[in-house]
Amino acid sequence: MEEPMTSPVRIGVLGAGGLGKAAARIISKKRELCLAAVCDSRGIVSSAEGLDGTALAGVSGDLVAGCRRLEAARAGEGGGAVAVATDVEARHCDDPLGAMLAMSERLDAILIALPNLPNEFIPGVVERFAQAEVSLVFVDVLKRTRAVRQMLALDALVKRSRSVVMTGCGATPGLLAAAAVLAAQSFIEVEKVDIWWGVGIANWEAYKATIREDIAHLSGYTLERAKAMTDAEVEVLLERTNGLLELTHMEHADDLLLQRVGVVDRLDQVEVGGIMDTRHPKKPVSTTMTLTGTTADGKRAHHTFILGDETTMADNVIGPALGYLKRGLWLKAQGLFGVFGCTEFLPMVVR
Amino acid sequence: MEEPMTSPVRIGVLGAGGLGKAAARIISKKRELCLAAVCDSRGIVSSAEGLDGTALAGVSGDLVAGCRRLEAARAGEGGGAVAVATDVEARHCDDPLGAMLAMSERLDAILIALPNLPNEFIPGVVERFAQAEVSLVFVDVLKRTRAVRQMLALDALVKRSRSVVMTGCGATPGLLAAAAVLAAQSFIEVEKVDIWWGVGIANWEAYKATIREDIAHLSGYTLERAKAMTDAEVEVLLERTNGLLELTHMEHADDLLLQRVGVVDRLDQVEVGGIMDTRHPKKPVSTTMTLTGTTADGKRAHHTFILGDETTMADNVIGPALGYLKRGLWLKAQGLFGVFGCTEFLPMVVR
Repeated sequence: MEEPMTSPVRIGVLGAGGLGKAAARIISKKRELCLAAVCDSRGIVSSAEGLDGTALAGVSGDLVAGCRRLEAARAGEGGGAVAVATDVEARHCDDPLGAMLAMSERLDAILIALPNLPNEFIPGVVERFAQAEVSLVFVDVLKRTRAVRQMLALDALVKRSRSVVMTGCGATPGLLAAAAVLAAQSFIEVEKVDIWWGVGIANWEAYKATIREDIAHLSGYTLERAKAMTDAEVEVLLERTNGLLELTHMEHADDLLLQRVGVVDRLDQVEVGGIMDTRHPKKPVSTTMTLTGTTADGKRAHHTFILGDETTMADNVIGPALGYLKRGLWLKAQGLFGVFGCTEFLPMVVR
Repeated sequence: MEEPMTSPVRIGVLGAGGLGKAAARIISKKRELCLAAVCDSRGIVSSAEGLDGTALAGVSGDLVAGCRRLEAARAGEGGGAVAVATDVEARHCDDPLGAMLAMSERLDAILIALPNLPNEFIPGVVERFAQAEVSLVFVDVLKRTRAVRQMLALDALVKRSRSVVMTGCGATPGLLAAAAVLAAQSFIEVEKVDIWWGVGIANWEAYKATIREDIAHLSGYTLERAKAMTDAEVEVLLERTNGLLELTHMEHADDLLLQRVGVVDRLDQVEVGGIMDTRHPKKPVSTTMTLTGTTADGKRAHHTFILGDETTMADNVIGPALGYLKRGLWLKAQGLFGVFGCTEFLPMVVR
């Protein structure tokens, strides 16, 4: 099963914010993958030979305009600058997701890095593709329990379209929930799973949507209120907290995905929280998953999985997402269609 | 996929040493599992309704004789003592593995907890079952690279018998190698995987075969020499080291199983060692898997997975083995036959 893939996997990335750009950059570093298309809310950029994700990741603001600026600069330098691709097609359109859907025969998989505001937005995108009966592998990095629940409810529709959806496959849920499945193996009874993350970003503006999703977890905030905040209002909030956001009792789908596979009986046995520093790239705390359980001898113990502080949110979200994407391709090749969570399979290694 | 199993999985355990007894005991704590049979080198004990693994785990020496003693004690107490089973069948025989093979239609899965001396012993047992064309799920907790390599080479034969073999599914390889697959997700390049284990056992005589397998890793020893040692000779060796065995550069199949899925390119990127205290149950060091890699930004970082000191070797070997056994049943139900390593799938949770 682990033979190198015969030809690169053609991936479309939905979203060109902080995570979408990180995905583009990391995909371009993997010889097994080909970045076939990226879209933002205003347009789509695509190439049959594969886009240069590193160049695209440097674009700020409008994706299509930025891509055209890069191409113009290259032409001006007589081909000296890096090409996004020699056959790049960059165009604005009213319905970039529809444009991605229209080119789905030239894709193997889709990584969804859209902001999920409101909760039903990303499940709705997958539903649209499935209703169009395109057969693809989708991976999302959804965080909220309600969103993942909606995604799991699409199972029958996704099966009918002969597609595979890997849901909740970022860091938390994703990497850390999978680590909890491993940790659970040593215990007769799992008491609780604690996920405590640290994220440091030098400049919050690179992750505007992620920050707003986190603000929505603060007491007194909702997704709607967070989405409606202007950048200036976010600045004022962050000014009050010295740039730090400490979040507890977060609604993260680690609970649902761990309950689904039997690691815990109840959602409240899983606790997710953390601290984000929006002004420094250094993590304020080490991201740690701690599983507490009781052994066959009746002893209480903890297994822990700790992420290196030098790894970024992008590393820990996009890396696993691509590993699960490859696992999704394997499932599809076996004829195993439907919606699967990060807690059901090990992600595969993508070279 | 995670519905509770409709009827308990009928398991045969090969081996009744320290790990075999621990397996019997842990299986009896799981409502999804039924301990259908256990054999040692001299006989087999079986029951259609399921053996009481906790009672069996208390037997010392010859399994069949011990089981008969338990039954006699129960009869003497007018049924007051715990029954191994009401329909228990306990008999000595020349070929206990053949007896287990003969009852394979009454089994769903086999957990192999035999000492693997010499290296080809356990692969030979699986080969015998596969050649008899019984369709079962097998799980082993093999440690040595050469043994796992031999097991993987049985893939075609195992596929022909419509069986599934999950190999190297204890703690190391097993739980810790799977944790390395997860940890690898955050990195573009994995530099090395270090597994450093601590095991504490109150009395080495409960794990005679395991200790001999570990002694074989010491400089100047071989599997053959370790196997030939008398208990008194082992005592003398342990006296010299104050009961501690420190092992480095161990030939553990974590290397092969991680190379197989692409976490590392070379076997020497994986290092396994540890310290066993044969006189105290407290672990001399915490068992830790450390993966070192380079991120997309060129940063070097470590992810770590640390097992709670209160968990025993039995918890961390048998727990994962049963989780992989359930994963093997899932694979078999999908018609996916063959030999798979612990690094290919997440183990499932067994309730």
